[in-house]
Amino acid sequence: ADIVVLPGDGIGPEIVSATLPVLAAVAKRYGHSFSFAEHDIGGIAIDRHGEPLPAATLEAARKADAILLGAVGGPKWSDPNAKVRPEQGLLAIRKALGLFANLRPVRPHASALGASPIKSHLLEGVDIVVVRELTGGIYFGDKNRSDTEATDLCRYSVAEVERVVRSAGALARQRRGHLTSVDKANVLETSRLWRDVATRVMREEFPDVTVEHQLVDSMAMHLLSRPRAYDVIVTENMFGDILTDEASMLAGSLGLLASASLGAGKVGIYEPIHGSAPDIAGKGIANPYATILSAALLLRHSLGLVEEAEAVEAAVSAALDAKVFTTDLAAPGQGVDTAGAARAVI
Amino acid sequence: ADIVVLPGDGIGPEIVSATLPVLAAVAKRYGHSFSFAEHDIGGIAIDRHGEPLPAATLEAARKADAILLGAVGGPKWSDPNAKVRPEQGLLAIRKALGLFANLRPVRPHASALGASPIKSHLLEGVDIVVVRELTGGIYFGDKNRSDTEATDLCRYSVAEVERVVRSAGALARQRRGHLTSVDKANVLETSRLWRDVATRVMREEFPDVTVEHQLVDSMAMHLLSRPRAYDVIVTENMFGDILTDEASMLAGSLGLLASASLGAGKVGIYEPIHGSAPDIAGKGIANPYATILSAALLLRHSLGLVEEAEAVEAAVSAALDAKVFTTDLAAPGQGVDTAGAARAVI
Ligand SMILES: CC(C)[C@H](C(=O)O)[C@@H](O)C(=O)O
Ligand SMILES: CC(C)[C@H](C(=O)O)[C@@H](O)C(=O)O
Repeated sequence: ADIVVLPGDGIGPEIVSATLPVLAAVAKRYGHSFSFAEHDIGGIAIDRHGEPLPAATLEAARKADAILLGAVGGPKWSDPNAKVRPEQGLLAIRKALGLFANLRPVRPHASALGASPIKSHLLEGVDIVVVRELTGGIYFGDKNRSDTEATDLCRYSVAEVERVVRSAGALARQRRGHLTSVDKANVLETSRLWRDVATRVMREEFPDVTVEHQLVDSMAMHLLSRPRAYDVIVTENMFGDILTDEASMLAGSLGLLASASLGAGKVGIYEPIHGSAPDIAGKGIANPYATILSAALLLRHSLGLVEEAEAVEAAVSAALDAKVFTTDLAAPGQGVDTAGAARAVI
Repeated sequence: ADIVVLPGDGIGPEIVSATLPVLAAVAKRYGHSFSFAEHDIGGIAIDRHGEPLPAATLEAARKADAILLGAVGGPKWSDPNAKVRPEQGLLAIRKALGLFANLRPVRPHASALGASPIKSHLLEGVDIVVVRELTGGIYFGDKNRSDTEATDLCRYSVAEVERVVRSAGALARQRRGHLTSVDKANVLETSRLWRDVATRVMREEFPDVTVEHQLVDSMAMHLLSRPRAYDVIVTENMFGDILTDEASMLAGSLGLLASASLGAGKVGIYEPIHGSAPDIAGKGIANPYATILSAALLLRHSLGLVEEAEAVEAAVSAALDAKVFTTDLAAPGQGVDTAGAARAVI
């Protein structure tokens, strides 16, 4: 299988370097052959090629079986009024490949509960997948700025909502059969469309899945007060961005959350949900588990290697059980480095 | 002082009824005269007058010294595609009175920490005020819906950002001198405008206040992992809606959070941040503390009665210290009713 590797900025190169040997170990153990081709995206691509998503990167990504991505952005390129920004590369590749469904599993691991700000008794048994719409909404609508004002347009089409709700419905059917759709239908027109379409798709195509609609503000609260009540949560792009960072706190560290961005075909982008963490970049101490777990999602969703994916997930669990913690999870002054954590998984 | 009272829907009438005697007790004790004039808003106004904000309500509100509001909405009017909705009444009165700054204090009370999903040791000393922009952004932009798509426009003008940042800066100066401005400047044009204006206003007018900018996704996380790091948080309408419901979990119950919606003048709307809670409406068990604390904000901000406001806040603290808890805070099967909690405060 051809895997395109996009390390990006900040800790991106470190966590990706730590993950490739895990994939190589899987290839060896199970007799597969994976090729890795590295390309630039984000800030490093701006520095080297003047644009955050060079044509060569996109072309390679289009031909790949799957894409493993680190993170983009950093203080060097952080002037929000700059003409080109690292984040544009990420948004553009998601859009260009049509990866409309971003799956973010949240399953707190017993040994990491201590690191969560949430009381441990609420977290036992929590097992959520957030499906975030990834190529529509206010992220991609027309943007304007004048001397006196600025605008962003939030737009959703029926077709955009249908396809992501279908992905989420299918996932809920394979899991515990419950879907929570999140919107702000008491205020936004796009949310009323979202709720209508979600209701119809679920009734017509997934009558066996129970559906609940929640307002985003109330969801931000219930995610903390009763996280066990949720199975699959589906929501639009911006709400999904906010709610998944919040949900990461259930797992104890943003450094544990993986994601898969999927479209109609097999190819997907797999990346940790955390960012480029410029404050710790270059120190070799970043938590690689979220990227390794993203590689497991890659094995499962793009390569169809379910057993291999489960083996990687089990190895990360075992490392966590053995308290192989990077500094984000370890007691103050303790913790292994990035390479040490990856070695434990291998 | 002339106080317009808008009980609204669901538990609104119950919590407002419980709060008026508290204000009457303040009037008696401190020798003031408060008049209360009740008007309809929300669902009840739709039922009685065919519109969620009748002209008589708005006219009375315009002339009042302050407005005490319960909550609006409920299943009876919850078809999101209905032509008139209770929430429109709330949005319209905020807008018509120019109440652009919605202050939501979050100060966990020691005796309620057990009810919070957050670990108690993180909550000690937390004392945050969120200033939510209330009359701009995507809530009020053009909305459109066709058979195939829907749109909502998010718009912010320089002047809208300036005035709310000024309110927040002035508040930070009176408090611990730290302001956190929240946006999504790596993606949204309105957020880049927000960040530019916030940076300039703070540098020019509040050089003594330290300023930090956070992305909304990362804020949703840090609010939980290090809530003590925040003093005043200022943000746009939608982000403020989501983050304050999330922040309510720091205080243990949505039933404890008050809010003040302020504009250029003295008049303000004071309301709990929770909604109309249709599931418990009519049972007389709703938590009245958020509404009573909103009345304290009314005394302070619209009537300039600081000592009286502090007396009410101290009385609510004393009731909480004495574990006079409604069912949202009490152990299962225990708890006083709405009237009992209000009596304890009086
Ligand atoms: C970097 C940024 C554009 C991105 C987003 O908001 O989508 C990130 O926060 C994420 O969640 O993947
Ligand atoms: C009822 C609704 C329109 C309102 C809002 O979103 O502003 C409520 O959630 C609030 O926070 O006051």
